[in-house]
Formats: sequence, C-alpha cells, structure tokens
Amino acid sequence: MSIPLNLHPDRLFPAEPGTRDLARRLYATVKDLPIVSPHGHTDPQWFADDTPFANATALFITPDHYVFRMLYSQGMRLEDLGIPRRDGGPVETDTRKIWRTFAAHYHLFRGTPTRMWLDHAFATVFGIDERLTPESADRYFDRINACLATPEFRPRALFERFNIEVLATTESPLDPLDHHRRIRESGWRGRVVTAYRPDPVVDPEFEGFAANVAQFGALAGENAATWAGYLAAHRNRRAYFKSMGATSTDHGHPTAQTSDLSAAECQRLLDRALAGTITPQEAEAFRGQLLTEMAGMSIDDGLVMQIHPGSFRNHNPHVFARFGRDKGADIPMRTDYVRALKPLLDRHGNEPALTIILFTLDETVYARELAPLAGHYPVLKLGPSWWFHDSPEGMLRFREQATETAGFCNTVGFNDDTRAFMSIPARHDVARRIDCRFLATLVAEHRLGEDEAFALAPGLAHDFAKAAYKL
Amino acid sequence: MSIPLNLHPDRLFPAEPGTRDLARRLYATVKDLPIVSPHGHTDPQWFADDTPFANATALFITPDHYVFRMLYSQGMRLEDLGIPRRDGGPVETDTRKIWRTFAAHYHLFRGTPTRMWLDHAFATVFGIDERLTPESADRYFDRINACLATPEFRPRALFERFNIEVLATTESPLDPLDHHRRIRESGWRGRVVTAYRPDPVVDPEFEGFAANVAQFGALAGENAATWAGYLAAHRNRRAYFKSMGATSTDHGHPTAQTSDLSAAECQRLLDRALAGTITPQEAEAFRGQLLTEMAGMSIDDGLVMQIHPGSFRNHNPHVFARFGRDKGADIPMRTDYVRALKPLLDRHGNEPALTIILFTLDETVYARELAPLAGHYPVLKLGPSWWFHDSPEGMLRFREQATETAGFCNTVGFNDDTRAFMSIPARHDVARRIDCRFLATLVAEHRLGEDEAFALAPGLAHDFAKAAYKL
Amino acid sequence: MSIPLNLHPDRLFPAEPGTRDLARRLYATVKDLPIVSPHGHTDPQWFADDTPFANATALFITPDHYVFRMLYSQGMRLEDLGIPRRDGGPVETDTRKIWRTFAAHYHLFRGTPTRMWLDHAFATVFGIDERLTPESADRYFDRINACLATPEFRPRALFERFNIEVLATTESPLDPLDHHRRIRESGWRGRVVTAYRPDPVVDPEFEGFAANVAQFGALAGENAATWAGYLAAHRNRRAYFKSMGATSTDHGHPTAQTSDLSAAECQRLLDRALAGTITPQEAEAFRGQLLTEMAGMSIDDGLVMQIHPGSFRNHNPHVFARFGRDKGADIPMRTDYVRALKPLLDRHGNEPALTIILFTLDETVYARELAPLAGHYPVLKLGPSWWFHDSPEGMLRFREQATETAGFCNTVGFNDDTRAFMSIPARHDVARRIDCRFLATLVAEHRLGEDEAFALAPGLAHDFAKAAYKL
Repeated sequence: MSIPLNLHPDRLFPAEPGTRDLARRLYATVKDLPIVSPHGHTDPQWFADDTPFANATALFITPDHYVFRMLYSQGMRLEDLGIPRRDGGPVETDTRKIWRTFAAHYHLFRGTPTRMWLDHAFATVFGIDERLTPESADRYFDRINACLATPEFRPRALFERFNIEVLATTESPLDPLDHHRRIRESGWRGRVVTAYRPDPVVDPEFEGFAANVAQFGALAGENAATWAGYLAAHRNRRAYFKSMGATSTDHGHPTAQTSDLSAAECQRLLDRALAGTITPQEAEAFRGQLLTEMAGMSIDDGLVMQIHPGSFRNHNPHVFARFGRDKGADIPMRTDYVRALKPLLDRHGNEPALTIILFTLDETVYARELAPLAGHYPVLKLGPSWWFHDSPEGMLRFREQATETAGFCNTVGFNDDTRAFMSIPARHDVARRIDCRFLATLVAEHRLGEDEAFALAPGLAHDFAKAAYKL
Repeated sequence: MSIPLNLHPDRLFPAEPGTRDLARRLYATVKDLPIVSPHGHTDPQWFADDTPFANATALFITPDHYVFRMLYSQGMRLEDLGIPRRDGGPVETDTRKIWRTFAAHYHLFRGTPTRMWLDHAFATVFGIDERLTPESADRYFDRINACLATPEFRPRALFERFNIEVLATTESPLDPLDHHRRIRESGWRGRVVTAYRPDPVVDPEFEGFAANVAQFGALAGENAATWAGYLAAHRNRRAYFKSMGATSTDHGHPTAQTSDLSAAECQRLLDRALAGTITPQEAEAFRGQLLTEMAGMSIDDGLVMQIHPGSFRNHNPHVFARFGRDKGADIPMRTDYVRALKPLLDRHGNEPALTIILFTLDETVYARELAPLAGHYPVLKLGPSWWFHDSPEGMLRFREQATETAGFCNTVGFNDDTRAFMSIPARHDVARRIDCRFLATLVAEHRLGEDEAFALAPGLAHDFAKAAYKL
Repeated sequence: MSIPLNLHPDRLFPAEPGTRDLARRLYATVKDLPIVSPHGHTDPQWFADDTPFANATALFITPDHYVFRMLYSQGMRLEDLGIPRRDGGPVETDTRKIWRTFAAHYHLFRGTPTRMWLDHAFATVFGIDERLTPESADRYFDRINACLATPEFRPRALFERFNIEVLATTESPLDPLDHHRRIRESGWRGRVVTAYRPDPVVDPEFEGFAANVAQFGALAGENAATWAGYLAAHRNRRAYFKSMGATSTDHGHPTAQTSDLSAAECQRLLDRALAGTITPQEAEAFRGQLLTEMAGMSIDDGLVMQIHPGSFRNHNPHVFARFGRDKGADIPMRTDYVRALKPLLDRHGNEPALTIILFTLDETVYARELAPLAGHYPVLKLGPSWWFHDSPEGMLRFREQATETAGFCNTVGFNDDTRAFMSIPARHDVARRIDCRFLATLVAEHRLGEDEAFALAPGLAHDFAKAAYKL
C-alpha cells in the first residue's frame, strides 16, 4: 500500500514547456548556493550543545505551529498532540501515538506549503521514498528516530549538510547570549548570529514590562527609569549583540505606527509604562517612538532594522491561557504603512547609512504602499512574503505586485523566519524555485532579457540577502 | 446570420494542453454528481405549486438582479425592463418587447459570469444552439415559452432533471413555512429544505422591527419584549424550522461585528430597539449580540451557522424608493473579521459541536484573515467565493488565496446563493470546472499527487458541502 | 560588448502557443489604430512653440518621476540627476554626466514598466538597436541628441509620427490657455485639448488658495467670495475651457469623499477657507462638496468628470522642501468609494446625461467596490489601471478583477496620464498588448467567442476612450 513520495525535479515550475525549461535552467544555477538565513527563530542552544534531536514527534510536530494549528482547526486537541500545558497538566507523552495521529491526518495538509516542507525534509534529510500515510506511519517514526540517533543528524552536522552560510536567531535584550558565546568559543565553524529583538523592554503591554526594564538597566549599567538612561541601555545592549554577530534588529509590533515625540513626553510615557498606568493608545505611541529611536541608533551602529508588524497575537484566549504564546493563534490584521511610518521617515527616511526592511501580513499593501515607498525612500527595502504568505502563491503575489514599482533592487531575497530547523532547506528551495519561475515567465513574455534573468537569479537566492543584512 | 452557441467541453480549463487534459479527466469524475445546494434564495412556492414558469422574460430577466443591473448601468430604465414599481406605477408589460431589449444588449455581458450562466441554461435546458442576438431574439422567446408550457419544464421536473439532491431556501422566522409543509406533504421526493434567516427580528433597523418582534413572540408563544422571552422565541422558531428540514441559519449583517454583552445590557438594547430609539451603534451591537446568541443556540440544536456580512444594502435611494430591495444596488464594503468575530470566538470558538461558515465580499481577507482564522479555530469553515465573486476569476482567487493556509479541509464546497433557478446547474458546473482546473494546476506543478486530486475533486463538488451543512 | 535591444514582436503575450497566436492576431488589428490620449500631463507649450527638445537627459530623466524616484531609492542624490532645487541651489548641469549615471544604473529598472517604455522609445523613436549600458551610454546620448536637432524630432512631428488622434492636457482654471489658443490659431492640424483641473481653487489646503480664488473671480468676472459667485466663476471658466477643446474635468483629491451640504454651510466653509481658518475635516468636506457641484455642472455643460483620488501627495517633506511637487514622493493610500461617493450619487447617480470616470490607486476596490458600483450606476464608468498600476501586471489585475462584474462596457479604454511624451506610444502599446492578451485568454478558455474578441479589441484600444470622453 506504499505510495511513492516523489519530489519532482520540476515542482513549482509552470506547466508551459518553454517557460518550464527556462525555469529549470535558471534554478540549476542557484539550487546549490549556500543558504543565507538572516531572520528566524531557531534555538541557538541546538548549535551550542549539539545534542541529538529527541524523536520525530519532537522534531516535526510539537514545536511547529503551522502543523498543529491545522490539526487543531480540524478538531484535534492540543493536549493529544503533546503540546505542553502552562499549568503542567497532563498531555499525551506517547510520541509514537502522536506521530500516528499526525499521519492519519496528513491529507489535511494537501495544497499547503507545510506539506511541501515536510515532504522535502522527509525525502532529502531522511531519505524516505514513500508518502506519509497511516500505513507508513510507523516506518517513518522508526526511520527518523534511528537517523536522529546518529552523529550525521546532530544539529551542527545538519547545519553543515544544509549548506547554511549564516543563520540568524533572535534574542531579547535580556538574554545573556550564552549559547551564542559558547558557539563562538567552541571552534565550530558554523556561523550562527543573534538579532536584537527588544519586545520585552519596548512594549509596555508585554508581561512583566517594568521588571524587564529594571533588569535591562541593570544588565547595561544604566538607570533605565530615565528616558536618557533607557536609551543608553539600548545602545549598550545593541553593542553587546553586535559583538555576538548581530547585524540586525527586529521589531514585531501590532501595527507599523511610529512616533516622534519630545523627550519630556517620552519620559512621561516611560513613567506611566513602568507604573502600569499607560493606556493602549499611549503604549502604541511608546512602541512607535521606539521604532524611531531604533532607526536613529541604527544610523550610528549600522544594525539593519526589520519591521514585522500586523499580527494580532494570541487571538484565542482559551489557547493562550492553557498553552501560551506561539501556538498558531496569531492572526494577521489590515495594516497601514503610509501614515504609520511617516514620523520615522520624516526624521530618518533620507539617511544613506540606514536600512529598514519592511515586512507585512497584509498583501494589499505590496502594490499600493510598500512598493511605492521602497521605490522612493533610500532607507526602505522590502522583505519577502512572510509567515502565512511564505508559500508558492504568496511569493508569486509578492513578486507580481511589488516588482513593477520597487524593482528587484529594493527587495532583499528570502528569509525563512522559522522555528522548524528541518524546514529551512525546503523553504529556501521553494523560494528559489518560485523566483526562477517568476524570472522565467518574464523572459518567456519578453519582458526581461534571458541574460538579465541569469544575472538576477543568484541575487534573489543568495546575494541580495547577504548584502542587505550586511552578513 | 445565426451564430452558433457552443458550450465548449473544455470551457474554463487552462489552455496549456497537459493541464487541460488533467482538468478534463478530473471534471469527468464529478460532472454528473448530484447537486447539493445548501444556500440560496429560490422560491419554495415553485415546488409547492409546481405551476409552469410564465415566460422567458419572467424566467430570465425580471427576477435576476445580475441581469438588470448591467442593463441599468448602461442607461436602460428598469421600468422598460418590466421591473415592478412599489407604487404600482406603469412599467413595460410586453414581455416580448422586454426580451428583444435584452437581446439587443446581450453583448454587454461579454466576459461576465452571467453570460456563462445564461448560455448554459439556453443550451442545456432549452436545447438552443445559436447565440442570443437581436436577430435570434424572437426564436429564443418562442422556443423558451413553448418549452415552459410543457410538463417537462415545470419546477419539479426541472429540479429532478437538474439532478438536485437537496436545495435549501431561506425564510424569515415570521414565515409559517406553508410552502415547505406542502412540499413535504405532497409525496414528491424532491428534497427542499428551509434555513433560518432572522433579519426581520434581529436587525433593529429592519422595516417594522417592533411589529415583527411582536408577531415573532406571538408565533412562538413567548413574550419577546423580554430578553429571555425573545431568546426563547428564537429557540422555538429554530426548532420549528428544523422540523421543516432546516440544517442551518443564515445571517446577512452589514459587518461581521459580534458582541458579548450582559443580559441587562441586552434588555436595554431590546427596549430601545422596540421603542425605535436605538442608535446605529447600538443597533450594530444588538445585531452582533444576536450572532453570539445564535452560535450558542447552534451548539444546542446543531444548526450550522452561516455569516454573510459586508454588503451595503440599497445603496441607491432612488432605485430603493421606486423598486424596493434586491434590485442590484447592494454594494460590497471593506470588512474586518479579526476584531469583529473576537467576542463570539472568545465565547464559543473552541466548541467541537459548532460549525460557523464564513463568507465575504471583501476578497482581501481570504489570505489575511479568513484562512488564518479557519486554519486555527475548530468552529470556523470558509464558504466559497460569494455573490459578485461567484465567478471563474473569483473562484480561482479564493482557492489561490485561501488554500495554502486553510487547506481544502476548512472549506465547504460550493453554494450558488441564487434566486435564478435556471442558473443553478450552470453555477455548479462553473464551480466544478474551476475547482478541477485548480487541482489540475497543482498536479501539473507537482504540488499535489494526481491520486490526491482525484480524491479531492468529489469533495469539492459534492461531499464537503453535504457534510459541512449536515445535509 | 554591445547587447542587442530587441523589442520582441510577441512581448507581453502569454507563453502558451495557442493563446499567444490569438493574442498576436488580435493585436495585429489594433496596433496601428490612432492614439486617443484623453488624460495626461504633457506640456501644451511643446506643441504651441514646436521648439526642439533639448537633449536626452532633459527628455528622459529630469522630467520623469518614475525614472528618478527609482534612482533616488537606491541612494543617488536628486541634485546629481539635475533635478532643479526650489532655492536655486547648485545641481548637476552636465547632461552627459547625468546620462552616464542613468546608464550605469539602468539595470535597476529590470522588471519595471519604465524599462519597457524606455526601451520602446529608444528602439522605435530613435532607432537604437543595442541595450543601454555604461558602455553604450555615450552612443545613446549622442544619437538621441543628434536626432532631436532634426525637424523630424520636433514635438509636432513626433505627435504626428506617434499617430495621435487627440491629446488632452490638464490646466488650472487660472491658466489663460494661451498655449492652447496658439495651437488652435496656428493652423496645425494636431488636436491638443485642455481639461479643467480646478485643484488650486477647490482645495482649501492648496498653496495660495485665497489669492487663487480672488484671481479666479477676477478672470471670470464674478465675486468668488460668495458661494453663488464662486459657483458662477466655475461655470464661466468651464465654458472657456470647453471653447478650448475641453471635454472633461479632472479631480485629484486625497480621498473620494463627496458632500451634499446646504448653501449656507457651503458659504460658511468658503469663508473659513478664504480666511485660512478651515480645519482639515472642513477642507475635506469642502473639496467633497465641489465634486458634487462639478457633477451638477457636468449635467449642464456635458463635460465628462474624472475622479483620481487616493494619493498622499508630497509624503517626503525633505524632498518637497528642496525640490517641490511631483518628485516621486506621492504614495497611494487605502481608499473607500462606497460611502465616500454616496452623497454625490444620491444626488446625481441616475442622471443619463452625466459620465463620471473613476480611477483608483487602491486595487482592492476593483472587484469589491468599483466594478459593483459601475455595474449599477448609469453615471459611473471605470478608468484604466492608473499610475503605479499602469503596468502589465496592473492592467491584468484590473481586467481580471473588474470585468466579471462591470463588463467591458463600463470601462473606458486606456489613458496614459503621463508627463513623458516619449512614453505615450509605448504605454498605449503595452495596454493594447495586455488587452489583447486578456481577450485571447478568454477565448482560449472558451469564455468568449473569437468573433467577440475581435469586436472588442478596437473598442479597448481606441473607440471606448473616444466615446466615453466625447472626443
């Protein structure tokens, strides 16, 4: 009853034979380029400790919200998938049973990028040549677990086998970056860098904000209860992050709102934030002010700034209460950039030394706002299609809607933005295939020279990301 | 001068030969499946009385706002198309003359789904093999009328010929459902069911709201002026609708706003609504509260809930004053779901027993809001592309934008949502062709196994709708 | 090192051979039709004076914000591109040096419509057969300049060579239209007409509004400080514009907001506008009132009304302060039409004598708002994809999203809306190719008869614009 698992060499290329042939030829020139992964959420401890991954379920299911959100949407309980409860209450611990449940519902992923990523990992990482079905579930589980027990499947070995040139993680300013220090001190040649993600100390609505800021000041040796000291603490921690390889900062606010307030008003907002009396509007203004401040600091220290707005975090209070953050219950919202970014752009938009990479979960802004903004402001560049839109259709929409106004030159190549280490090669492979498909279509329609497509392909696959992120 | 009317067997399939061939093979497996029409606005009296349809004009033009809105947009007067005036003033009554006017302007429908539906009905229902033109207008009119006079073209005969497995209509809670009772008592085996559409008693801005609620209470034997009695009356009428075959409720609010208010606040809003002193904001809150209440009742009685928001009804006051509702002057609006649905989802979003099917007239929410919501919340599923988007391009956009995040499994197959009985087979045929085309494209691009496409095709054409609507 | 510059005869047609062949055959029937350019911003002085264009840089770079915004976005200074400063400060004057800078960065335009327009002009106007590169830059510069010095490249000769049947410019009510008068009096047979663009006297936030209105009244012989006199001045100037060939008015407001206020309220707003005490909300109401007034005047004088909303003008204060308006820093905004147009439509929406052509920079409204509105209201028609969306992908999105609900008949063919005279043939050629491609796809998918595609093609290329604009 085994069904073949074929990763067809022409997957994601268009069906029209001439265009497909050109896509294939373009892809051949980029498929083996090293992976630059300038933004993501893998765990640096993997590479510091190099401990084997535990088992197939712990590798593919329990940490991947793309996987378990789909199963949850179809009526499975998160407890039955082994997702840990915040209260420590009982959840399924039989990893083989969880794997079988997953296999029994693998058909739910038909047509999704998750299915493509998983199949890619099963085939290319674990050498499996049959489709995951209820019938093959145990063979999968056993084979993956057997592999994981071997040295070739430890995190560092996979990092090297995946041909990763550089991988960025994201850490809080409160993180001592011990894992990164240990990686650097270990003599291992894999390049894993951090990125400065200051949510816990810039978002007055983050759990424990006041305590976080106190700790932040202490780490930096500054009185972070004063606006000047608070800013100095950021400069201090940014410098430390930079010493641990960081070339970028990352900002995941609910909106793209920026502010440009007086120092007195900033102190007032900080006071209210620390006192816990800040209103939602003031919290938004405070976060927005921090974007403007971070841009200013980036002009000084050269860190590339990433803005990832527009997610309504923890939309499901039941899931949040029981399982916590990042459990597949973040939902995109309509997002404005034109008015929201103006305070920041008015102050720093024409600075040659600054790079701000914009992301969105609201695809309507590609052609209407982001491409026109990036096609004018020297500081702005466009990140790739992100999160729910990190998918074949999403990538095509991004290229089709952004390229005509922003050009390729104002985009920065691909970011995987993932916690799922196994999916990194798959995601980059999808992006390379779709970009080559897009280029091939332009050539087939005589909108771009074939020589120009071959010149652009390695840029989209590798060089643009490396340059934009200063890696 | 007769021009052939060809329904090409490959219509709506992509031009690329390999993909077209696969689309054709997939379609062959679903084209003869019975029609499940779980949501629409046909008139149950047709099937209760089984009286012949009057003539070509009364069948195709005067009841179909898709048809006469286009003619009106090009300067024809609705009076000249025989649309009845509310004041009983004179309108054209020469149905042949109206038909000729329609034929003279048939070219206006080029490129529209209306043209496809009409051609499909002309060819497959009436066996016509020439295009509608001014020259063929009389032949059309005579042939259609001659057909309608025969027993084979009575409503029940057509219902059977159309291979309709089940057809849902929508009725107000104030409707005694006499037509449905007569259908059930007639011994005819055609399955026509009602659906609970409570606008007249849940929308404080509906004409005659207070009188409607009084009548509603009387029908249910409850004092509907109290919040408890009002809710009890809903439970009572829902049970009656269920006894007449209803498996669903339907809610067509201006927005997707939901509320979760205290009983005291609900009583206050009900009081003001009955007194006619409710503000627009309060009316919106009241309607939103009813969505949450209806969801709660659905958990108890199992009726599937449909939410159809986002239409600005009766946008043209001149047309409304002269001709009334549903005259082609309803215009879609931008619609938010992420914030709007939160009160309802906070209360009922994780209930395994509840199914809520979401529709939209704002396509921007497919990838941004609806697919992420449906790909997480167990209660949510996505209805097909709706109304203005019930079209080849609209259906493709829905699949391309929703599938990657929601999967196929969180969608519910096709609804025609039509008042135009003749268009039902045509609309389902378009949907089946487009879904097979979409599947064929995924296979041609090696994004889905061919066996999986054949497994999904009957689901999209028939099984998903039957299951989701519990039919 | 010379790279061929090929304008492939099949450019922009789809790759699938059958569809491409049909697109080619459709295009052959329209490619030589004369150009109707009913809306744009070319300078009538060119045709009045018929002075030679100065040089390649002055022709292609310094006046074209599409060109220099891209260069600016990649870090070039506008001063170094020869863009004049408002303060008269120094900018680069070596036009050859500027041209070389442009050539060195020509790769930035890959995938943009600007690249297509430029290549089209280089090849078809100047007969150049090699790509613009740093290596060919001087040959380009010399050849273009040599051409411009000959009589065949003077504005009137090019106008005739471009096969322009009629070209509309846009002027302020304060413009004496001397250039237009001189063109008409010159005996030259080229048809250049004006259009009434009243921003300086209808926008209270326009620089010098009060002085403008005073001058406006003086020109018209009316006391424009009274609401009645102000309206009479509009009627007077519209009549004068009409005598100079105008068939249309043009309105470029930030939003599509319309108003329908009492005369007393209008007087109050006018008073505050003239006194400089009007609030932003009042200014918006005033502009909105003027749209309604202009519609009323159009019913009387027959001028076609164009509404071009949704641009955030002069988003970059640094660029505005140094270089002024129209320097590539206008950014589209999300735009509502359904609520915004209602006051105007309530008053004039059903008038057979009125034509209002709607444009948008927010593509999300094509299927959701504009096509449903235009498919109902007799006064409304849809302008083509505009500005940032005047591109192959933008045009396809417009047809794919608007046609099914509005039909072709509620669209008005192509407008170039350009200041770049050289790009006019290129832009119309792109539009004709894309429209033929769209029609060919419909035929290839059996959604439209081949005879119908051939009937529609000249309409989309020429006839619809001529009829809609009454040219």
